Amino acid sequence: MQNQFFKKKNNVKINDILNILNLKKIKNNIKINDLKELDLAQSDDLSFFHSSKYLDQLHSTKAVNVIVNSKHKNIIPKKINPIFVNNVLLAASKITLLFYPNSLDDLFDANVQPIDKNKYIKLKIGKNIFLGKNVRIGRNCSIGHNTIIESNVKIGNDCNIGSNVIIKNSVIGNSTNILDGAIIGKKGFGFFQDEKNNIRYPHIGSVIIGDNVEIGCNNTIDRGSLSNTTIGDGTFLDNQVHIAHNVKIGKNCIITGQVGFAGSSSIGNKVMIGGQAGISGHLKIGNNVQIGGGSGVIKNIASNSKVMGYPAKNIREFLKEKK
Amino acid sequence: MQNQFFKKKNNVKINDILNILNLKKIKNNIKINDLKELDLAQSDDLSFFHSSKYLDQLHSTKAVNVIVNSKHKNIIPKKINPIFVNNVLLAASKITLLFYPNSLDDLFDANVQPIDKNKYIKLKIGKNIFLGKNVRIGRNCSIGHNTIIESNVKIGNDCNIGSNVIIKNSVIGNSTNILDGAIIGKKGFGFFQDEKNNIRYPHIGSVIIGDNVEIGCNNTIDRGSLSNTTIGDGTFLDNQVHIAHNVKIGKNCIITGQVGFAGSSSIGNKVMIGGQAGISGHLKIGNNVQIGGGSGVIKNIASNSKVMGYPAKNIREFLKEKK
Amino acid sequence: MQNQFFKKKNNVKINDILNILNLKKIKNNIKINDLKELDLAQSDDLSFFHSSKYLDQLHSTKAVNVIVNSKHKNIIPKKINPIFVNNVLLAASKITLLFYPNSLDDLFDANVQPIDKNKYIKLKIGKNIFLGKNVRIGRNCSIGHNTIIESNVKIGNDCNIGSNVIIKNSVIGNSTNILDGAIIGKKGFGFFQDEKNNIRYPHIGSVIIGDNVEIGCNNTIDRGSLSNTTIGDGTFLDNQVHIAHNVKIGKNCIITGQVGFAGSSSIGNKVMIGGQAGISGHLKIGNNVQIGGGSGVIKNIASNSKVMGYPAKNIREFLKEKK
Repeated sequence: MQNQFFKKKNNVKINDILNILNLKKIKNNIKINDLKELDLAQSDDLSFFHSSKYLDQLHSTKAVNVIVNSKHKNIIPKKINPIFVNNVLLAASKITLLFYPNSLDDLFDANVQPIDKNKYIKLKIGKNIFLGKNVRIGRNCSIGHNTIIESNVKIGNDCNIGSNVIIKNSVIGNSTNILDGAIIGKKGFGFFQDEKNNIRYPHIGSVIIGDNVEIGCNNTIDRGSLSNTTIGDGTFLDNQVHIAHNVKIGKNCIITGQVGFAGSSSIGNKVMIGGQAGISGHLKIGNNVQIGGGSGVIKNIASNSKVMGYPAKNIREFLKEKK
Repeated sequence: MQNQFFKKKNNVKINDILNILNLKKIKNNIKINDLKELDLAQSDDLSFFHSSKYLDQLHSTKAVNVIVNSKHKNIIPKKINPIFVNNVLLAASKITLLFYPNSLDDLFDANVQPIDKNKYIKLKIGKNIFLGKNVRIGRNCSIGHNTIIESNVKIGNDCNIGSNVIIKNSVIGNSTNILDGAIIGKKGFGFFQDEKNNIRYPHIGSVIIGDNVEIGCNNTIDRGSLSNTTIGDGTFLDNQVHIAHNVKIGKNCIITGQVGFAGSSSIGNKVMIGGQAGISGHLKIGNNVQIGGGSGVIKNIASNSKVMGYPAKNIREFLKEKK
Repeated sequence: MQNQFFKKKNNVKINDILNILNLKKIKNNIKINDLKELDLAQSDDLSFFHSSKYLDQLHSTKAVNVIVNSKHKNIIPKKINPIFVNNVLLAASKITLLFYPNSLDDLFDANVQPIDKNKYIKLKIGKNIFLGKNVRIGRNCSIGHNTIIESNVKIGNDCNIGSNVIIKNSVIGNSTNILDGAIIGKKGFGFFQDEKNNIRYPHIGSVIIGDNVEIGCNNTIDRGSLSNTTIGDGTFLDNQVHIAHNVKIGKNCIITGQVGFAGSSSIGNKVMIGGQAGISGHLKIGNNVQIGGGSGVIKNIASNSKVMGYPAKNIREFLKEKK
């Protein structure tokens, strides 16, 4: 699938990549299609392995060329051609910039113009709305006052977008409501520290929101770095929820006020999360999980569990201990 | 009292209600005035009982006709005429929509127009302000830039409304400040799950804010479903506070940054709540209660208590255990 | 240094101050330059001592005249000339208002006008931007849509200001990004309770933000009461972070989503704070400290510590207990 928000360089060869990593060039200077996460990469993509949490994916990936750290040398499958670097994420960051030179900045869209209501079917609009280029809006939608929708955003039919909303780098399904003050699609809080400074990480992912979703007031939903941030059909988010880059939320979930998700966690279907709970990064939460309000989840949670506490544990255990 | 934000159908009879609930019609097809909560209902209103937490109210209510689940059959007072349904809240939702057909949507107010300063006494205004129809603003107020005040909102004297504020379905007293970015009066996060989907709940309540109140930046205060969300005189809210539907906060309270209230809890007078604390739904917090920062309150709290922790307990006990 | 945001009265004498405190006038009616915190006061300033946490500063201050409560009578150094009052903060509040009569209100800036792009060098601008008087913006900056920058704000070179941003009473360095929806520089949530009411505290401090800083979406950063709120070079804040008045954050810190800081705490350099953690007021956090997500910090933390939990403790201890 083509990235509709960031333009990719199409003539990148493996020696271009080895060059920016300060590594020796090789003879077989093959073309590399893109940098992809292990589970999404095809055989002509480059991928990267930075944590043993993703060992399963390293075994099942279609990628052949993979950036790794030499400390993981002994667990690399034979079919993988490893490219050794000291800092895998720093390397991935440099390679992303090579493919997508504009992915580090995240300025406002200078192309926006006052909305032309007549370009859309049965659209209700408020005051002072600005749209970027090539915005698609389905039939029978509404957009509130002072809202900004940046270039290439796609919105389905029967959607209601509130006032003071900012949407960029996003694709939204049908019958979905985005409430007042929500900010959707900015680059994630992804970066790393070298010895001296904080260095920003390029973000070429999008935010993909399904059908019949509700995004609460003042929510912040960041786009993914390489993969997308996704919110499944029928999921409802209350006010002041924060969703970091690369988070995947399933279908028909209920996420109550002030919940926060750190980056790259995946949440199943029909999950209910009480107010102010926090989900750490890189976790897997199963289906039908119930997480009590105020909980801090720092481990994977199996389907059909009810958890509470900090760190979150089985709810019966939690309540017994607290008696 | 007339609902000033939602128009009520005035010719609803009990058989209309039984019909939408798929129940048998009755002979004595009396007129029903409105759907009200137990404590607010008059004898010609219909009410509903969905949790034994409200058993006291079921005994003292003036309502005669009450929607109930058959599992509560044995605790219903004799004077009540029960109407049995499987899902009380689903029934209440359908009946609310019957009385208030426009209470499920929560679109932006299409009636807003640029403010006409001359209609108000000693009003200071910023740029790009839009007001709905029939907005009342008292003397000597100020309204900041980009703020939207929707139809029928009432604001007292000597109030300061900040910039980027959105107010709807609200009544605000005198000498009250609403700071930048606050969003007040949207419908609450009220809904329920049937076997398949999340279903939105209609909201016909308002937000009622007293005198000398301060509402912090980026606060979100949702309107009530049937009753109102209320904030008493002299209460101050810091930034990023979230108040769900039907919450009642007393007078002279101090609510610090990032505190969250789940739906339908009531808070007494002179209550102090530290930063990031969370109050679960349907609780009663007494007067002069002090709740430590970061606490998670999941039980009622008696007046004059100091609590802390998660779940919140007596503060001395908490600190002793943590030593 | 001159306060660029609030105009100071320059002819205040000590008997003016004693008068508003309902204290007896003295013979030697010296001029008082300003009201300052103990560590910033010069010999001709008045200062105040309200908590034994600041005993070190009481010993090292250059101030001679200091407002104190008589309960602290026995710990006052001999060189200090104490002015005894019942409520030190109430007195400080009255004196601040004497020096800075306009420091209690915090209305929108009525001087803003549509931005004139040509007054600035290589400035990229969005739509509907308003600037106050005497705003300085360096070269090569960008400002997004609907953003308001109030009078006397100073912004360095190469800064990107997002959309829907409000900035007042602030000085911002070079190469700093302020993301969408951030609200910077409003007066803090500082006040106190007398027997009956909540009384607002005047705020004459600013927000001082360094170079290469990132302020996340929907952040709220309040200005200081007497001293400034400061954020050091290279520090990155994620979305929905709340920073109360007088907080000092060092260099190259990473503050993750929904973290909150109560007033007057100071944070060292290279501190990392996980999502939703809270830092109580008046604390000192050292350099290179790591604070786990969801933690509640209620004590000072020494440099190079890793802490977690509520209350936050050494991370190894925390994880051992929770096993």
